[in-house]
Amino acid sequence: MDRRKFISGAATGALGATALATPAIAQESPKLQWRITSSFPKSLDTIYGGAETVAKYVTEATDGQFEIQVFAAGEIVPGLQAADAVRDGTVEMAHTTSYYYVGQDDAYALGTTVPFGLNARQMNAWYYYGGGNDLMNEFFATKGLYGLPSGNTGAQMGGWYRNEINTLNDLKGLKLRIAGLAGRIMERLGAVPQQLAGGDIYPALEKGVIDGAEFVGPYDDEKLGFVKVAPFYYYPGWWEGGPTVHTFVNLDQWNELPDNFKGVLTAACQAANCDMLASYDYKNPAAIRRLVNEGAKLRSFSQDVMQAAYDAAKEIYADISSSNEAFKKIYDSQIEFKRDAYLYAQLSEYTYDTFMMIQQRNGAI
Amino acid sequence: MDRRKFISGAATGALGATALATPAIAQESPKLQWRITSSFPKSLDTIYGGAETVAKYVTEATDGQFEIQVFAAGEIVPGLQAADAVRDGTVEMAHTTSYYYVGQDDAYALGTTVPFGLNARQMNAWYYYGGGNDLMNEFFATKGLYGLPSGNTGAQMGGWYRNEINTLNDLKGLKLRIAGLAGRIMERLGAVPQQLAGGDIYPALEKGVIDGAEFVGPYDDEKLGFVKVAPFYYYPGWWEGGPTVHTFVNLDQWNELPDNFKGVLTAACQAANCDMLASYDYKNPAAIRRLVNEGAKLRSFSQDVMQAAYDAAKEIYADISSSNEAFKKIYDSQIEFKRDAYLYAQLSEYTYDTFMMIQQRNGAI
Repeated sequence: MDRRKFISGAATGALGATALATPAIAQESPKLQWRITSSFPKSLDTIYGGAETVAKYVTEATDGQFEIQVFAAGEIVPGLQAADAVRDGTVEMAHTTSYYYVGQDDAYALGTTVPFGLNARQMNAWYYYGGGNDLMNEFFATKGLYGLPSGNTGAQMGGWYRNEINTLNDLKGLKLRIAGLAGRIMERLGAVPQQLAGGDIYPALEKGVIDGAEFVGPYDDEKLGFVKVAPFYYYPGWWEGGPTVHTFVNLDQWNELPDNFKGVLTAACQAANCDMLASYDYKNPAAIRRLVNEGAKLRSFSQDVMQAAYDAAKEIYADISSSNEAFKKIYDSQIEFKRDAYLYAQLSEYTYDTFMMIQQRNGAI
Repeated sequence: MDRRKFISGAATGALGATALATPAIAQESPKLQWRITSSFPKSLDTIYGGAETVAKYVTEATDGQFEIQVFAAGEIVPGLQAADAVRDGTVEMAHTTSYYYVGQDDAYALGTTVPFGLNARQMNAWYYYGGGNDLMNEFFATKGLYGLPSGNTGAQMGGWYRNEINTLNDLKGLKLRIAGLAGRIMERLGAVPQQLAGGDIYPALEKGVIDGAEFVGPYDDEKLGFVKVAPFYYYPGWWEGGPTVHTFVNLDQWNELPDNFKGVLTAACQAANCDMLASYDYKNPAAIRRLVNEGAKLRSFSQDVMQAAYDAAKEIYADISSSNEAFKKIYDSQIEFKRDAYLYAQLSEYTYDTFMMIQQRNGAI
């Protein structure tokens, strides 16, 4: 439709109004200006960038009719209160990880990941095709939230340590910056979990107030400089095999959103989900090279440590399941898919990657 | 804005026209009705579904102002001519894989995958953060196309065979349904590549006209019933480690698209990219269980076969690079990222998955 014709049509009065009943967007949808509060600082451009991707796609796609403005952790509310601010109506949206709210309900953990949970691709399969999104939103609705998967970091690293962890015995009394369910597992293995904000980790490691700290992966960890004070860099991060990052919308506001804006936001979040993983997957490889050059000593957790942690995790999940119905329902759904997913992954994906890793080690790529 | 107020405002004539100058979408954007031609039949709901996802997101997000209608392979043009139909202006869009057009230019192969190429996550990392999208579109522009990654199947399987392939010698004279660069590699190893449409594969395998056939993976392959006539099911599909599926738009029409519709389509395609991989990752595990129950005998290609194929692939890429500048530029970019990507993947991702696979084999998930 020609713009001038459109306007002159409108200018003919009542006839104009009738003509205007056809093109739908401007008339059906109010102009919205929403705020999204991130749980992350701007300095973590990978994970903070997820909220910017969502905002950019929605604003662009609606030509500014649905405008979303991004605020970093602390600008409106502290990072760990982002979902609460959405529930209470302080802001319309949050970009956060649901496991930050595990203190309110253990079932929140399953929305992001639990130790030894699904990997990044499996999380997406479960969310979009395995009923995961419906299951999680049944739970989120009880907290006044609607959730949309909007990012994933991929498997994280297992943290920085001042000394090597060779046996289970080396975990006894170890003071570790680690939270949530992973902290509870570490406690069962004899370690002493500590809660510290991102900025407090470095001095605590430097002074030996703590012996180790987990954060994210090479690209994010590099910014905090841990390599200088705790050079043993362990993998895998068995407590975060493929954590999903969420966009939360206040449930009432979600329900009132016009259908086309629901559609825009849904596509934008799924696009952002793909985008964040791509961002990590591109940035982490170069970062690990830099870290090793700066003195990082790569170590894998021993099978003994992994197995003890795995067994402890299963005990904890059984405990929680016995008293938390929402947790049990979601956990059982993830486990059922995980059995088949890790059977199938052994075939093409794993043998393909293994062969390519052999070529990489042989310098033949 | 209240809908009735909006309409009555317009009904006041000239004042209404002024008020209407503000909300932008309906007036800036013409109503578009585009057609997307798929290279795939409706029966392959996973890969055909990718075009439906793109169409659904775009149509919903614009409240039907930008409507995309999906056509299966053959409804407008044959599946293997989808990109040509877009270039020629027969349709506005295609949902296809760029390697189908490798006969026109070898560089097309790199947009989807080449044997021993990047895996699915690495392709996304390269496309969205490693400059891949710009590089490919520099090439696609010379063909009158604009491309948007819109799906991925994950690592495919290595096909169905009437007999076991134990050594390189077993490939000599083997009549295989396989195309493109993988066919050229197989030819160097002594096999005889055959080109057959999907529907012709089963009878050819049954009668022994061919000895083996590659298709996609468990969920798609199951529909064609190969298990009954060629039960040896090999992995990995080293020629398709993580193939990207594209949406192509006619370049002129892309350039003329209003910015908000470009934004909608970009987000929709990236969302569809995430969605298709999730679909395969959810459906393949259950399909492989069914196929094994029906008699599929799982076999992995030997390291000898894999290594010979890898060495032949590198020779072929060097040959093509020496005479095709576009191929060389894109290939070099993928290889540079692949070196670091497969170094980093050995740490957390691989050891995490390995540990979980051990638990799966022990029946401990």
